[in-house]
Amino acid sequence: MAEKKLDVETRIEKVWERRDEFLALNPAGTVPVLEVPSGPVLSNSSAITEYLEEVHTEPGLLGRDPASRAETRRLVGWFDEKFHYEVTELLVYEKITKRLLSLGEPNSAAIRAGNTNIHVHMDYIAWLSEDRRWLGGDDFSLADIAAAAHLSCIDYLGDVPWDEHGRAKDWYARVKSRPSFRGILGDHIPGYPPPKQYADLDF
Amino acid sequence: MAEKKLDVETRIEKVWERRDEFLALNPAGTVPVLEVPSGPVLSNSSAITEYLEEVHTEPGLLGRDPASRAETRRLVGWFDEKFHYEVTELLVYEKITKRLLSLGEPNSAAIRAGNTNIHVHMDYIAWLSEDRRWLGGDDFSLADIAAAAHLSCIDYLGDVPWDEHGRAKDWYARVKSRPSFRGILGDHIPGYPPPKQYADLDF
Repeated sequence: MAEKKLDVETRIEKVWERRDEFLALNPAGTVPVLEVPSGPVLSNSSAITEYLEEVHTEPGLLGRDPASRAETRRLVGWFDEKFHYEVTELLVYEKITKRLLSLGEPNSAAIRAGNTNIHVHMDYIAWLSEDRRWLGGDDFSLADIAAAAHLSCIDYLGDVPWDEHGRAKDWYARVKSRPSFRGILGDHIPGYPPPKQYADLDF
Repeated sequence: MAEKKLDVETRIEKVWERRDEFLALNPAGTVPVLEVPSGPVLSNSSAITEYLEEVHTEPGLLGRDPASRAETRRLVGWFDEKFHYEVTELLVYEKITKRLLSLGEPNSAAIRAGNTNIHVHMDYIAWLSEDRRWLGGDDFSLADIAAAAHLSCIDYLGDVPWDEHGRAKDWYARVKSRPSFRGILGDHIPGYPPPKQYADLDF
């Protein structure tokens, strides 16, 4: 939304509380949910991003032709599904969710798996950015946003092996320096401060 | 694709074999993959369906305006994510995948969970179809296709409690009678025949 220069007010929702008022907005009980002023209440991240693309067309964040758009959507799926299950879910659940909800000690085997799996994804980012300016092609797109969203969560935990993946680091440095990314880098989880280099443009 | 009257030749891919030729088409190693003649190779089901909507616009399967399209996409997410994790994955993995790949005996607790969870989804289908002709609105859409795709897998196992969910059954009977659904009802897993009523229009 910042890329499209759309104003948005963000609110924290503790989804695990399953509040009735929130379930009335989205019976699936998940975030994100977007309330459009004098418009619909939207949920599901793909439904929201596609809506924003249709209603606020500039700048386009999917690509210029159907094949490029398919490639962007494939990569969004890669990060929101594959990276999510292989990395984000393991590390964030073990290190953050368990602590927030007092669900016991982190499982070190799960953390090891997440820390191992991330290397394949860093290599994939490097491979994609070898021939392309951005992950989905020549233009910055939702593919970069999806990848950077997941990586920034892992970076908040201090678990991204930047030193071993210079090319992926170069790509992330370019994402991080975009004005649209500044608000995200300022977000903090109460009681769980990020490592020093998290918001640093020179990391 | 049958709704759009597009010819397609289907091929079986045993994804667990992780064939190099297949990984070259889709490095995520998942189905579906669509090879467009003289066009791109597409993967990820959302990327494929959105591509087909953009290139073959009639009949539209998402809805007529941005809000309707967001509602369709939300429901596709509901079935492909929520129904998938709460029902399909549990039952299909325990009953089919384990048998196909010799992964041991089915876990009866997982099967019980899937058989319990399905009722909420049947109620949700009933609730949606109370005020709407189809799940996403007045027009048949990808929401109906996603829901019916998951339900037909569970129905193949004989695990859909139709008798307790008359309204959801009425909706499914209407999907089942569409010409586009016929090919799916003819699909069989070798060595695992479907129950008698699976392909029956009067079930």
